[in-house]
Amino acid sequence: MGGSEASRIRKRLRFLLVNAFSLSERAAYRPRPRSGPKEEQLYNYAEVAPVLEDVDWELHPGAPATHGDWPVELREEFAITGVNRLPIVREACASGRYDAVVLLGGGDPGFWEAREIGHRHGVPVTACAHAQMHIAGMLGARFSVIDISEVHNMRMADLVRLYGMTERCASIRNLDHPLPRPAAAGRNTLLGEQEKAARGEASSMLEAAVAESVAAIEEDGAEVLILGCSAAYWLQGPLQRRLAALGWDVPVLEGYRCAIEMAKTLVNLRLDVSGLAFPHDPPKRFRRRKRV
Amino acid sequence: MGGSEASRIRKRLRFLLVNAFSLSERAAYRPRPRSGPKEEQLYNYAEVAPVLEDVDWELHPGAPATHGDWPVELREEFAITGVNRLPIVREACASGRYDAVVLLGGGDPGFWEAREIGHRHGVPVTACAHAQMHIAGMLGARFSVIDISEVHNMRMADLVRLYGMTERCASIRNLDHPLPRPAAAGRNTLLGEQEKAARGEASSMLEAAVAESVAAIEEDGAEVLILGCSAAYWLQGPLQRRLAALGWDVPVLEGYRCAIEMAKTLVNLRLDVSGLAFPHDPPKRFRRRKRV
Amino acid sequence: MGGSEASRIRKRLRFLLVNAFSLSERAAYRPRPRSGPKEEQLYNYAEVAPVLEDVDWELHPGAPATHGDWPVELREEFAITGVNRLPIVREACASGRYDAVVLLGGGDPGFWEAREIGHRHGVPVTACAHAQMHIAGMLGARFSVIDISEVHNMRMADLVRLYGMTERCASIRNLDHPLPRPAAAGRNTLLGEQEKAARGEASSMLEAAVAESVAAIEEDGAEVLILGCSAAYWLQGPLQRRLAALGWDVPVLEGYRCAIEMAKTLVNLRLDVSGLAFPHDPPKRFRRRKRV
Amino acid sequence: MGGSEASRIRKRLRFLLVNAFSLSERAAYRPRPRSGPKEEQLYNYAEVAPVLEDVDWELHPGAPATHGDWPVELREEFAITGVNRLPIVREACASGRYDAVVLLGGGDPGFWEAREIGHRHGVPVTACAHAQMHIAGMLGARFSVIDISEVHNMRMADLVRLYGMTERCASIRNLDHPLPRPAAAGRNTLLGEQEKAARGEASSMLEAAVAESVAAIEEDGAEVLILGCSAAYWLQGPLQRRLAALGWDVPVLEGYRCAIEMAKTLVNLRLDVSGLAFPHDPPKRFRRRKRV
Amino acid sequence: MGGSEASRIRKRLRFLLVNAFSLSERAAYRPRPRSGPKEEQLYNYAEVAPVLEDVDWELHPGAPATHGDWPVELREEFAITGVNRLPIVREACASGRYDAVVLLGGGDPGFWEAREIGHRHGVPVTACAHAQMHIAGMLGARFSVIDISEVHNMRMADLVRLYGMTERCASIRNLDHPLPRPAAAGRNTLLGEQEKAARGEASSMLEAAVAESVAAIEEDGAEVLILGCSAAYWLQGPLQRRLAALGWDVPVLEGYRCAIEMAKTLVNLRLDVSGLAFPHDPPKRFRRRKRV
Amino acid sequence: MGGSEASRIRKRLRFLLVNAFSLSERAAYRPRPRSGPKEEQLYNYAEVAPVLEDVDWELHPGAPATHGDWPVELREEFAITGVNRLPIVREACASGRYDAVVLLGGGDPGFWEAREIGHRHGVPVTACAHAQMHIAGMLGARFSVIDISEVHNMRMADLVRLYGMTERCASIRNLDHPLPRPAAAGRNTLLGEQEKAARGEASSMLEAAVAESVAAIEEDGAEVLILGCSAAYWLQGPLQRRLAALGWDVPVLEGYRCAIEMAKTLVNLRLDVSGLAFPHDPPKRFRRRKRV
Repeated sequence: MGGSEASRIRKRLRFLLVNAFSLSERAAYRPRPRSGPKEEQLYNYAEVAPVLEDVDWELHPGAPATHGDWPVELREEFAITGVNRLPIVREACASGRYDAVVLLGGGDPGFWEAREIGHRHGVPVTACAHAQMHIAGMLGARFSVIDISEVHNMRMADLVRLYGMTERCASIRNLDHPLPRPAAAGRNTLLGEQEKAARGEASSMLEAAVAESVAAIEEDGAEVLILGCSAAYWLQGPLQRRLAALGWDVPVLEGYRCAIEMAKTLVNLRLDVSGLAFPHDPPKRFRRRKRV
Repeated sequence: MGGSEASRIRKRLRFLLVNAFSLSERAAYRPRPRSGPKEEQLYNYAEVAPVLEDVDWELHPGAPATHGDWPVELREEFAITGVNRLPIVREACASGRYDAVVLLGGGDPGFWEAREIGHRHGVPVTACAHAQMHIAGMLGARFSVIDISEVHNMRMADLVRLYGMTERCASIRNLDHPLPRPAAAGRNTLLGEQEKAARGEASSMLEAAVAESVAAIEEDGAEVLILGCSAAYWLQGPLQRRLAALGWDVPVLEGYRCAIEMAKTLVNLRLDVSGLAFPHDPPKRFRRRKRV
Repeated sequence: MGGSEASRIRKRLRFLLVNAFSLSERAAYRPRPRSGPKEEQLYNYAEVAPVLEDVDWELHPGAPATHGDWPVELREEFAITGVNRLPIVREACASGRYDAVVLLGGGDPGFWEAREIGHRHGVPVTACAHAQMHIAGMLGARFSVIDISEVHNMRMADLVRLYGMTERCASIRNLDHPLPRPAAAGRNTLLGEQEKAARGEASSMLEAAVAESVAAIEEDGAEVLILGCSAAYWLQGPLQRRLAALGWDVPVLEGYRCAIEMAKTLVNLRLDVSGLAFPHDPPKRFRRRKRV
Repeated sequence: MGGSEASRIRKRLRFLLVNAFSLSERAAYRPRPRSGPKEEQLYNYAEVAPVLEDVDWELHPGAPATHGDWPVELREEFAITGVNRLPIVREACASGRYDAVVLLGGGDPGFWEAREIGHRHGVPVTACAHAQMHIAGMLGARFSVIDISEVHNMRMADLVRLYGMTERCASIRNLDHPLPRPAAAGRNTLLGEQEKAARGEASSMLEAAVAESVAAIEEDGAEVLILGCSAAYWLQGPLQRRLAALGWDVPVLEGYRCAIEMAKTLVNLRLDVSGLAFPHDPPKRFRRRKRV
Repeated sequence: MGGSEASRIRKRLRFLLVNAFSLSERAAYRPRPRSGPKEEQLYNYAEVAPVLEDVDWELHPGAPATHGDWPVELREEFAITGVNRLPIVREACASGRYDAVVLLGGGDPGFWEAREIGHRHGVPVTACAHAQMHIAGMLGARFSVIDISEVHNMRMADLVRLYGMTERCASIRNLDHPLPRPAAAGRNTLLGEQEKAARGEASSMLEAAVAESVAAIEEDGAEVLILGCSAAYWLQGPLQRRLAALGWDVPVLEGYRCAIEMAKTLVNLRLDVSGLAFPHDPPKRFRRRKRV
Repeated sequence: MGGSEASRIRKRLRFLLVNAFSLSERAAYRPRPRSGPKEEQLYNYAEVAPVLEDVDWELHPGAPATHGDWPVELREEFAITGVNRLPIVREACASGRYDAVVLLGGGDPGFWEAREIGHRHGVPVTACAHAQMHIAGMLGARFSVIDISEVHNMRMADLVRLYGMTERCASIRNLDHPLPRPAAAGRNTLLGEQEKAARGEASSMLEAAVAESVAAIEEDGAEVLILGCSAAYWLQGPLQRRLAALGWDVPVLEGYRCAIEMAKTLVNLRLDVSGLAFPHDPPKRFRRRKRV
């Protein structure tokens, strides 16, 4: 609501979607193509398409990975990946070409810093875990995060704390289907699980998601379910249907659509973030005291 | 995200906006006309118009008031008004004519019950205080409510508790400019304050809003400001500008735009509310245990 | 402690007990007779009688139900019933005939508004869930609510939040024995369970209460048990005895006695409610800031 | 509600009131006489008398002080005094002569241990700070403690934590009018303040109480005021009246009447304390897990 | 950091370790010898020795028990024992012979009061439960207390509250292996369990510790384990090894080493406790308001 | 306590201290020399020396800054600096040459990720804000952070959340004396303040620190004070003395000594961090559920 000119002309929103990182051509596993049509570089495009219908969007494939040539799970890797993404955000915000920047990727690498950058330019930046948590709050008292692995869980736990969501987070549930990365050698990963489920075959990952979701509902008090890792966002539809078939009337969210819709809300309301939470440097005015 | 048909046709959203109540022709004070163009029956239409551009909307003037022929401030009056509004919600949801119902009015009369009704039909219902609190959460750690009077403050306090927002609410600040109602006889009300401010004259209500907002920022830890009563929503623009002029980089929200945008988000994500928080009766499946 | 005249004459307290609602003669199910001796219109009079011995009490059968001709479980029904009860409270408080008003019924319909009314007249108003929660707090760190059905549970959850009891509520446990109402057609209701238990026959409701109470103690950390619905208050004695027989040294409360005793406490201390929490309109003096 | 025999005979309750400690004949300051009629050994008997009208009560003067021959303020002194009082409680509970034991004294010395003893015998034990905090909770969302001195404040803070009242305690306010004890030599004590106020003279203690109460209301969010030290309980009436004269509609409690009324409630409901919170040794049954 | 002389001479620290109490020669059970070399009077000296290498330490056997001639578990016994220990603390602090006083014993009898005494002399006092909780906080988000018996559990719960650790305490887990005391007659006590485990025989206490630790990790969210009773501190090593063998990478603490190391930290930083939390009497300066 | 060999030989601890970053020779402002004796590269060596007496320590000057050639304040800069420091930590932990790594710098850049790395090697890593917060907790109920600037404050706020310290943090207080960096051009920075204070001249930074500390004590409930930025650690002694002169008996901490002492504690107890909070990848065993 930053401004009061009532007569602005309605136009299509322009968003930049930025992937978390991009692996090399030589990577043993590449979750998404690095080139080709933008739609193919997005996970689960068919599901996401409806919320992009009224948006003019571009996709950035993400900065080349420097933590290793595999997907990200450790805190260390998230930190490195996050910093790598900041120049993309800086450039996008400074360009004046976008109404909003949507950071893809489940663990929100670089998001907190990107909001600081965005605010300098008045450009809202949204991210997948953060948006899911806020939209979950609109629907029920507590959410659980259905997530892929032990170390990724702890990244999600850090985000819950950083975002001030400890009261709203019922639990983080571990499917123990990590990303295909060296540390997971010899273990059951999430590789191929989406395809199995799509073919109607049994997917151990989907079964684990059902079991952990039911436990989150029955034991932890979850009233909404969100997904931790973008490589698990395909679960949204199948998990929602399986839970419904069991009689559970519970929403399952995923990050892309939530981050895109939250970006629309912020743009439409002419907001990005509070300048008290993400101050300019120097600020025009400062608070002597902050509560945390 | 209730459903996965990716190919739905984009169409304009259809919303019903419902005023909190309508006073009689004989009322000493009538905050809004009860007839005429729908735009005239909305507070601050010029400001709200942009977010309604992509919506086909209708306005219901609200159920005739039975608590008295004056605006609502007491808990007792909110309860009565809320119950009066439920048949309108029931009918709108059952009609199949609306994608969402937006409840106007600052104290959200009947909202909690209306969500229960909406969920039976899969129709999202949003309300002004609730939507403001959630959007405020996207922007900063804590919000303060800038509100009109002592008794209205306590309604807002009840909502903060009911909505699970105690950790996020920095404070409720009292402008002591009540609605023009019998209890306010002889006191300074909000009557005429918007007009004064619009004419560029000094408005004691706007001055109080500035003073209390600064106190909320400096003393209470507010990082976002929301407005308590819909008859004070006109403050959004002027207060935002005054705070900016003082150097305070803080968002000021109001309820109409927030409730409308939140309705869009829910419709676009095919969500209304969690069926675990607002269960069907009987539910297909139940939880043995609830945490609160 | 509103006053210091030490020499007042001790006299019997005069209470008005008000049932939550009254169904018609044609109702398929009528939990309590609407006429006859007042003692017969109270659930479990034999159990309650001792705390009424030193009270001159009258019973109001409750306002005729307008939500439907069946007992109340939904939030919508609670709101309607609550508003219907307010004129009775208004009249009782204004009459000067009662030292206190005791609102019967497990989900406290109309209580929050009734306290506001009561304070105008200096008359304490108490209610069953609220009083149980406060007396439970005197006995142990956390209580669980043993309650009848999914939708009724959510009403109790709303009350826990509204009353500021989230830290003290270990859980709400669902017996899945709803009231006999159209939504429960074909399901196991609480109808006849009290009679079975009284005859020494197996009662599935009592068995569920034992199982959920033990789970509340062992899993949820409950140190006190309270009952959710007045139609389940008969469980107090049998459940207490069953738990004792299992070795569990835990108090089980019910609402009537707690609400009556809390009313005595307030009258004896010459208190009703804080005027800061339930202010007069207009208040003599107001707080610029409220914390929630 | 431990028992269901409906036909018990109503009889007058028998309470033992136990002072916190008794000083020697040689003490420089003796707050209460150690002999003479029991009424004279109670602070502010005229105010307390009404709630004792329906009680057969005895007074124990308290165990002789061993911490020093002066009143108690330090944690060390409270611990010693509390232990000294336990044999009195043990004997009273074992005697079968009392329905309840009421521990007098503002800082509740020995109370937590006394409840453990009482539970062995099924005898409720109440204390002044604890009872005030619980009754305050019935009246408003948060209480402040109006208290006499820096070190006494910290005892009150310990009690707030131990009793699980941190969410409900708005603040502890220091009047800086300590008890007349060696550490207070040369300082302004509470000695003579009650008498000054009674004579209509200015009392610096009462003035401080008014100032701190107003600050507690305006700055800390207190909705109820309680008194910290029994030697300050005389403030209840005068402070209540002064605040009312300023327009503040806020209840002021003191400990004697609250502890006595809470004892009545527990006796009437046949409760003392939860055996899960204060277990027998050995317990019949135990919980594997406790939450705190 | 109380002082800024940068040039002080490094010397060995001088600590007094004080046992919780000492039983008579006639006691049916004596957990530790009352005489002989100080090393023999300490539980598990071999494990503790490394952290004492750089300390000149003395051992006080504890004040003679007055609560009974058996070990302590009840709140009542802890209170009595705590008061008995205070003169030892007073004398040690006043003597100027010690840099710190380390209170041995799992339930910290007398610790809170001893800190007050220590602060008068600028001597840090540490205790076993308190130090464990703080060091646990350095390692993970939540700790569980692995503890011996139902009544001892409740003492630990009181300490968790008093120390402001409720957010950090995942649970208290009961091994149901009480101390050998009259109340435990005929029950399984901890007597002989350490010896069995040392001989490589099955110890029901160790097995229970493993089971409850795993439950604390899996169900309660514990990330660190601490031990409740000093007579169970022998579990530290065996339990740590057993959990490691099960694959659980979780630290297990015990109280002696934690209390000794915390004492070193405080001495090295020239700190004892905040004078705002444990004020002098009279204080040089006081706070009008305390938050709890 | 990772291991039980009682007979290890006491030897001097070997620590690596790592500065947060190092600026170039061309930097307009260089807070510390990049070469010369290690003692000269440490802030306030004279104050820190005593706690390093029993340590064999080396100093790493920090990775060359890549965020800009000025000191760090923004979230963005902290993220970049933190990632730059990780290779130093990796190498140090892998080298086997250090018992612990101590990360210097007030805002703990890279600390959370460094703990993850350290745990792989069993090497404790400590950092200045984190250690201060934990040691503050040993001393009083709440700490305030006395910190240099608006944007630096928000980094501290993020750390408070991430470290789970929201309940313990009374406030963050802004001295408005930022580091000398381009954004501070034309403003009052901290440059030269230490020297002024050392010369006995008035230092506006020290005066602000006194004023904000007193406000933190009186208004926010702080019982301990910690310092936010390492370039402000010189305040520890002067601020402590000034507050003492005002009669405030409150500890003031700084980060270097706290981080060093915490490292000693962890090494002596053979701990680094919980493997449940910072799991190995892959973990030997995982938790299905995490609470946050």
